Amino acid sequence: MKLYGYFRSSAAYRVRIALSLKNIAYESVSVHLLKDGGQQHSESYQALNPTELVPTLVDGDLAVGQSMAILEYLEETRPEPALLPADAQGRARVRAIAQTIACDVHPLNNLRVLKYLKHTLGVDEEAKNAWYRHWIQTGLTAVEAMLARSDQTGRFCHGDQPGMADACLVPQLFNARRFNCDESAFPTIVRIDAACAELEAFQRAAPSRQPDAEA
Amino acid sequence: MKLYGYFRSSAAYRVRIALSLKNIAYESVSVHLLKDGGQQHSESYQALNPTELVPTLVDGDLAVGQSMAILEYLEETRPEPALLPADAQGRARVRAIAQTIACDVHPLNNLRVLKYLKHTLGVDEEAKNAWYRHWIQTGLTAVEAMLARSDQTGRFCHGDQPGMADACLVPQLFNARRFNCDESAFPTIVRIDAACAELEAFQRAAPSRQPDAEA
Repeated sequence: MKLYGYFRSSAAYRVRIALSLKNIAYESVSVHLLKDGGQQHSESYQALNPTELVPTLVDGDLAVGQSMAILEYLEETRPEPALLPADAQGRARVRAIAQTIACDVHPLNNLRVLKYLKHTLGVDEEAKNAWYRHWIQTGLTAVEAMLARSDQTGRFCHGDQPGMADACLVPQLFNARRFNCDESAFPTIVRIDAACAELEAFQRAAPSRQPDAEA
Repeated sequence: MKLYGYFRSSAAYRVRIALSLKNIAYESVSVHLLKDGGQQHSESYQALNPTELVPTLVDGDLAVGQSMAILEYLEETRPEPALLPADAQGRARVRAIAQTIACDVHPLNNLRVLKYLKHTLGVDEEAKNAWYRHWIQTGLTAVEAMLARSDQTGRFCHGDQPGMADACLVPQLFNARRFNCDESAFPTIVRIDAACAELEAFQRAAPSRQPDAEA
């Protein structure tokens, strides 16, 4: 397997966590999102993934983009250890937490969106950062409520084994910290993130540990 | 089953298509996104779905938000007719098309985002509509490429049976038309949308056919 990604990409980070939790060996291919006007826009990368976004997973003949589709693919083809619970209700809960991050938070703060705000709409740095923090605050408030009010939340988002929701939550909190978001309203999220940080699988997937990491 | 939605919500529309394709009977509960300052922000709805977004599916004890989590839940609990192909590679392809719409297009054009652009960033109507069209154009360009270059595309997004990708594509094209986006670069998408429009299941799910439809 090859994973085309970028050390700081939150969506690639999710996939690295899943690969790491499942102990799947893979080759990392760096797609630098800033160099050369963004290597994700190169012809060769477009041929692999027409969305011009990272990550892309290549597994034999298959080249698949979209981190959530990749997580589901890994779960179906390398089921152990499972990143989704066995029961349909639990699976729905985990996917809803994961998608709240993947759909409602992350796409709004993606590089291309921040560029559009700055270059097309002329939004200044301060307002751009406020935008970034606003969507993290809104999304994590919902996730905190989903976690705090359910007795299905354990050491991790769902029970005592890390899974798909944790693989989305940790990269999002990493971004929140980069932009100095206030974490005080999210005690459950912060606790779960700390539990994940203790695991070697999460440590290996961290941006700073990637071959293309920069200071 | 109860589906909390809004006739014009693209995410609720996806779920209606899936319910309709699977012939699942359900009760429609309207959450008016504009009335009363947005009924999705009411205490009673927040208790059901802390994201304060539609849709929410209630099935017995389960209340689950996030349209993509709902589609997966329906597929797992009411597998016939299947909305995902049987093979893992095909499932990855369908999910990647669906998520390109669900993650990369729709969240950027959601009501709350348009409100933020207008009220917080002071973006005028013309620039707001340009934003809307820009993300549709970008996302549908990628989806068109994914569809046009694959021999797995058939009458529908994947083969000759409608599925999860079609359930996302049709509502997105509906939005594109509402905002007068140029469709000329998307011949495959337009062809597939027309094939879907011939099916009673898609017709029943259309915004204009919902109990809360407005002119």
